Amino acid sequence: MIQRLCVIGVGLIGGSAARCARGFCREIVGVDVSPENLRRGIELGVIDWGCEDLAVAAQDADFVLIATPVGAIEEIFRTLAPVWSESAVYTDVGSTKGSVVEAARSVFRRLPGNFVPGHPVAGAERSGVDAADPDLFAGKRVVLTPLPDSETNALQRVESFWQRLGARVSIMDVSHHDVVFAATSHLPHILAFTLVGMLGRKNEQAEIFQYAAGGFRDFTRIASSDARMWSDICHANRRFILQMLEEFQQDLQEVTAFIRADRVDALYTRFREARAARERFLQGMNDDHA
Amino acid sequence: MIQRLCVIGVGLIGGSAARCARGFCREIVGVDVSPENLRRGIELGVIDWGCEDLAVAAQDADFVLIATPVGAIEEIFRTLAPVWSESAVYTDVGSTKGSVVEAARSVFRRLPGNFVPGHPVAGAERSGVDAADPDLFAGKRVVLTPLPDSETNALQRVESFWQRLGARVSIMDVSHHDVVFAATSHLPHILAFTLVGMLGRKNEQAEIFQYAAGGFRDFTRIASSDARMWSDICHANRRFILQMLEEFQQDLQEVTAFIRADRVDALYTRFREARAARERFLQGMNDDHA
Repeated sequence: MIQRLCVIGVGLIGGSAARCARGFCREIVGVDVSPENLRRGIELGVIDWGCEDLAVAAQDADFVLIATPVGAIEEIFRTLAPVWSESAVYTDVGSTKGSVVEAARSVFRRLPGNFVPGHPVAGAERSGVDAADPDLFAGKRVVLTPLPDSETNALQRVESFWQRLGARVSIMDVSHHDVVFAATSHLPHILAFTLVGMLGRKNEQAEIFQYAAGGFRDFTRIASSDARMWSDICHANRRFILQMLEEFQQDLQEVTAFIRADRVDALYTRFREARAARERFLQGMNDDHA
Repeated sequence: MIQRLCVIGVGLIGGSAARCARGFCREIVGVDVSPENLRRGIELGVIDWGCEDLAVAAQDADFVLIATPVGAIEEIFRTLAPVWSESAVYTDVGSTKGSVVEAARSVFRRLPGNFVPGHPVAGAERSGVDAADPDLFAGKRVVLTPLPDSETNALQRVESFWQRLGARVSIMDVSHHDVVFAATSHLPHILAFTLVGMLGRKNEQAEIFQYAAGGFRDFTRIASSDARMWSDICHANRRFILQMLEEFQQDLQEVTAFIRADRVDALYTRFREARAARERFLQGMNDDHA
């Protein structure tokens, strides 16, 4: 049982976690820069009470979930530092982990043993506390990236927290996490934003979109994600994102050269390989969900 | 009532059209390079009889639907030319229209007045006659690109054919069609194939895919499309596809430069504009389906 869960950032992720953790928390306090968001969180029963003063809310908490955009985390560490409690555990939900570890090190000099960086691989086009869904993490992956400094007990408490929310927890190295997500999440988001932005700027946009089929809707779904969150992620994980962008642009230039030279067979080979890779990927996902 | 519908290429599109047209066709004959496909089409009741000899099957047909990959169409025109009937109407389902018009012109010198180029904007990851679905075209768009040479009566018969299959027919200029689909369909497919191909070649692929979330699955769905069909499309519409690829690469380079220079606000503006464009697009789609 958690005595006091402190959720910093009562949005989709923080709110959904609070909703689902209700059963094993005596008290849930929310912290948010928006008083309106806190009011709404209380009204919806997502949190018991809200507080704009982070230090006050976190002080007596035994479990602190930092669910703000990754760009805000260093400032939050700075505010938490004076009231940092050795008996509490702290975790976050940022989509990039190197930047979070760096922020913690710059505030605390070393990663506090009772802070375990985390990343629930769940999200939705919707955002805000109104979208909070107690089933958001059911069957989803949560990646934790503990460091050698991390305490076993803290890791276990964070792991158990997410498991009780229905998630499957994986442990990964910080850099490896950031490479993997640069590839499967950050790069695709950048491509989708760039494509939709480009088409949106075309004069004939209304008509262009009018003839788009379902495939286009699926392909561009992630371009409806939160722009602030994604520009933050591009900053936070820029080293690996730039690597992936470079690799992708090289491959795209090759494909473009094949089209220009009318090398249909070379294109066919590329496309067939991609199709086969996706089949392996789906196979992996299915196995994973079995 | 159609006396004899001749479907050339009994795959997903041809088979689905045949299934759905059953009610207003006295006889449906299928032509396919694969005898096995014809056998299967008869077994499934999609076609009444099959024939590997195109000229024989088409000879007494009053409605000829060419549903082969775009790359095969010139050869088909060449085979049809000696038995071309003035009382029949001919249409195709190719995803590119300029190449089809060019093929017709190279065989017939001018576009035959009773051939109306068409493009049903429907498809699926599945392919082959086994995937034939009588509801595939319900509520979907079919774009027809008649030329000044096209006969009004032929256009009306083709339009009415698709309407009876539940589709909504739009008329568009050939080049305009090819630009619009280069943007909303061909470019996204190339990006998806290139991304999945790139990730598939990485050593850590198994793990990379393992942590991919639902957004990635949606984003890459179109990379499961038929590789032969898509390499053909890249050939057939390469002029406009190359234009789109060039524009996209320019935009992607700008976004990459923003990330490299850590210009988070410039990224935010780009992403926000993209998100807004997609919202307009969804709005358009919704209106469209109302």
